[in-house]
Amino acid sequence: MAGKAELDLVFNPRSVAIVGVSSNRDYEDIAETYIRALIQCGFSGGIYPINPKGGEIRGLKIYPSVKDVPDSVDYVICCIPAASVPRLIKDCAAKGVKAVQFFTSGFSEIGTEEGKKLEAEICDLARRGGVRLIGPNCMGVYSPKAGVSYAPDYPKESGPVAFICQSGGNAIYFTRYAVQRGIRFSKVVSFGNAADINESELLEYLAADPETEIIAAYIEGVKDGRRFGQALKMAAAAKPVIIMKGGCTEAGARAVASHTGVLAGSARIWDGLLRQAGVISVSNLEELADILVTFLYLPVPSGWRLGCIDVGGGAAVVATDRYVSCGFVLPPLPPEVRQKLRQLVNTDAGISLNNPVDLAAQFYTPAVYSVVKTLADYSGVDMLIFHLPLAIMPPFPSFPEEYATAILDNAIRAYKETLKPMAVVIDQITTGGSLETAITCQQKCHREGIPTYFSIDSAAKAIARFLHYYENRNDLTRVCHPTIEDKSAGQSREGS
Amino acid sequence: MAGKAELDLVFNPRSVAIVGVSSNRDYEDIAETYIRALIQCGFSGGIYPINPKGGEIRGLKIYPSVKDVPDSVDYVICCIPAASVPRLIKDCAAKGVKAVQFFTSGFSEIGTEEGKKLEAEICDLARRGGVRLIGPNCMGVYSPKAGVSYAPDYPKESGPVAFICQSGGNAIYFTRYAVQRGIRFSKVVSFGNAADINESELLEYLAADPETEIIAAYIEGVKDGRRFGQALKMAAAAKPVIIMKGGCTEAGARAVASHTGVLAGSARIWDGLLRQAGVISVSNLEELADILVTFLYLPVPSGWRLGCIDVGGGAAVVATDRYVSCGFVLPPLPPEVRQKLRQLVNTDAGISLNNPVDLAAQFYTPAVYSVVKTLADYSGVDMLIFHLPLAIMPPFPSFPEEYATAILDNAIRAYKETLKPMAVVIDQITTGGSLETAITCQQKCHREGIPTYFSIDSAAKAIARFLHYYENRNDLTRVCHPTIEDKSAGQSREGS
Repeated sequence: MAGKAELDLVFNPRSVAIVGVSSNRDYEDIAETYIRALIQCGFSGGIYPINPKGGEIRGLKIYPSVKDVPDSVDYVICCIPAASVPRLIKDCAAKGVKAVQFFTSGFSEIGTEEGKKLEAEICDLARRGGVRLIGPNCMGVYSPKAGVSYAPDYPKESGPVAFICQSGGNAIYFTRYAVQRGIRFSKVVSFGNAADINESELLEYLAADPETEIIAAYIEGVKDGRRFGQALKMAAAAKPVIIMKGGCTEAGARAVASHTGVLAGSARIWDGLLRQAGVISVSNLEELADILVTFLYLPVPSGWRLGCIDVGGGAAVVATDRYVSCGFVLPPLPPEVRQKLRQLVNTDAGISLNNPVDLAAQFYTPAVYSVVKTLADYSGVDMLIFHLPLAIMPPFPSFPEEYATAILDNAIRAYKETLKPMAVVIDQITTGGSLETAITCQQKCHREGIPTYFSIDSAAKAIARFLHYYENRNDLTRVCHPTIEDKSAGQSREGS
Repeated sequence: MAGKAELDLVFNPRSVAIVGVSSNRDYEDIAETYIRALIQCGFSGGIYPINPKGGEIRGLKIYPSVKDVPDSVDYVICCIPAASVPRLIKDCAAKGVKAVQFFTSGFSEIGTEEGKKLEAEICDLARRGGVRLIGPNCMGVYSPKAGVSYAPDYPKESGPVAFICQSGGNAIYFTRYAVQRGIRFSKVVSFGNAADINESELLEYLAADPETEIIAAYIEGVKDGRRFGQALKMAAAAKPVIIMKGGCTEAGARAVASHTGVLAGSARIWDGLLRQAGVISVSNLEELADILVTFLYLPVPSGWRLGCIDVGGGAAVVATDRYVSCGFVLPPLPPEVRQKLRQLVNTDAGISLNNPVDLAAQFYTPAVYSVVKTLADYSGVDMLIFHLPLAIMPPFPSFPEEYATAILDNAIRAYKETLKPMAVVIDQITTGGSLETAITCQQKCHREGIPTYFSIDSAAKAIARFLHYYENRNDLTRVCHPTIEDKSAGQSREGS
């Protein structure tokens, strides 16, 4: 691949210069944030702040120019005004810099002739100087293995997901949100106007990247549709690709034009392109995280038949409606399973031994383990969903963390003994404390390979798309779409 | 109305007996939770715990039987096993009790002949004894003005929303969630199997209740469709009615049968019924809260033309797509408005003066006030949406509360000066701390009459339904559906 070595270096620079720091401000500016991010992410190479006035910042000497850095400089982060950029590129070319990333905006996206001209000019200067460009108008790269980041709070730990993002703000937010949801990244790239390195080159690279198992993207528009179509097809053939397309409406396309200066393209053409390539398309970033969680943690179930374990009859009704609307089947439990469940729980207590099993007050007892195990052992369901609502108990505004984790432990124990694919929904999050409890519970589940969602709706949609993905690839060993009248529901089935 | 005086007493009992307390347990049982809820909600009448063994609980004397209470008893909360209930009803009739609410389950919902018979028996005993029944199989009543509650954490403060709910769990959760979202209640009733007091009687009552301005309901099924249809029509003619129907799918209906023992009915018939009555139908409880927030806080805008203020180009693109998909129009701003905005902000800073206005780094400056005011003064938009994302800033994992409230203060000031209908979306909530920040910001907005949502999707859907509601009632003085090509977008328009 043409730019492989160059992109390798973008994701693994040996030294970084940050151009546009100031040592005399009383607030943290963006250049200082980049420096702090490199330090906190554990970047081990040289970090060289640049400002003509010199000085010191965070204990680092400020050099007047990139050319004055005593070491070689692989990678430059540019935070100076657009007008000064051509000069910087020339300096970078002279210094042998491999790539420049532009936080700087004020190019083609502002829609003026000057903006477009300036962008063309820096591209030309860079090409002639052997410098690759990221952006302009972007946040740049988060490459945890190399200790490169644009936000100081991102984890040092890396993972199998790559995320390429045309929007800097969406890259900042989504990475944070995804990290909270238990997702870790091989690479994140915010590439803005895509004047040089663009979505197609990145897709080609990531398709072959051994550190990346799943590719996620937020894309507003592409310049070379043919190359993009080919790159997409190649990437989606190699690994799951999930894309959120920004600018699906006429007004959205207008917002795209003034954001990254690209043509959003027709929603219909995009739909066709994504479907044809076998890409999963999502319409918001939270949905993207739900699907990533599913790919990361859920073993592929052999079909659509769910067994649900719940507390609260109303919650069970709402969950059932939602799952069924997304294509799942909740088969009624056959007499022998109901009989077995009846022996495990105190049936005086207002519980329901249908599917969903509503455990009522016995949700808070070790009976949970036996019930989950019994359902997992039942071959008439392909996967389990365990529902842990946090605000349903009358005495507790929100469920105490130790109660929530104790309940989960019962469910997890049954999962570990049966390995029946299982998902956990932790919902009814009404306070800061309950969100923290939910995150703790999620970590517990993810450690065991159980995907976790914060709403029934999220779980239903994401798991349905996951199943459709494998159905379309004919990877499901057996896809099962019984109706609830299916007479075989009570009979045993092999392989589950 | 037949049962008005009886329901008045259900919502305003002068004394309450709780049957089924135990003084010798080492954990808090449900009867104790009811007692604690009454005390913490400030119930000023007599609270009488009942258990044949006597004793004391939370400083209150336990009486052996309802009949032994020295005072008169208006209202009884029943937490004893189903088999002992007939005897209790007889005691209540002898004592002159006006109403009994049953936490107790184990009646028609368990699906056995005995369960149905027992329910019929207690209904018969109650009718003959002049006692009204709530439930069985329910949480009962939250009537903050009277100090009656089933959960100790519910606020004492009352408000204009009534919520009737066939599910106890959904009533517990939804009330908590709604309270966190700034909604306050006149009455909440969880009525379970609806053996006596049912959704129709409650709707009739609430339609005429001066303390209730909006009626919300979660309903799984009805026994008398004709009466329900009439009650619904009457209620919806009097005030906004929003209903979530549980059991819309075949499997959901099965879950309903084992939950409250009622017939869920066909989804098609329900759809028609709700639409004909002019009821707003929602498919989850969070959506219900969004719509209540809208009715409580948003003045009715004169049309669908939005002006949006945002930070982050990607966020602006995503928001635009979402609003437009829900039927809104984001008219391009005419030259004179753009010119005015240009004078207010530093246009070097990568901002976009389209609609959405993306303020980039100037989002964190007092320029927000002038920009919001300018958009509010522009007659080409009917309402404003202000977007406050909490995790978009590179240096902050989540936006510090004092920054978030300072930004909001600028927007609120402009709102107060113009009174242009405005909504605020506070999103990107990734941590417990950011959820608390969002709630603080929400309170700030609600105090000024600005509805607040925690996602763009929630805002778009809820406000769209709100507008449709008034359109369908022909209450919009002028409904405006221009396309983005609409030439009049730049011209001034009266009355806004």
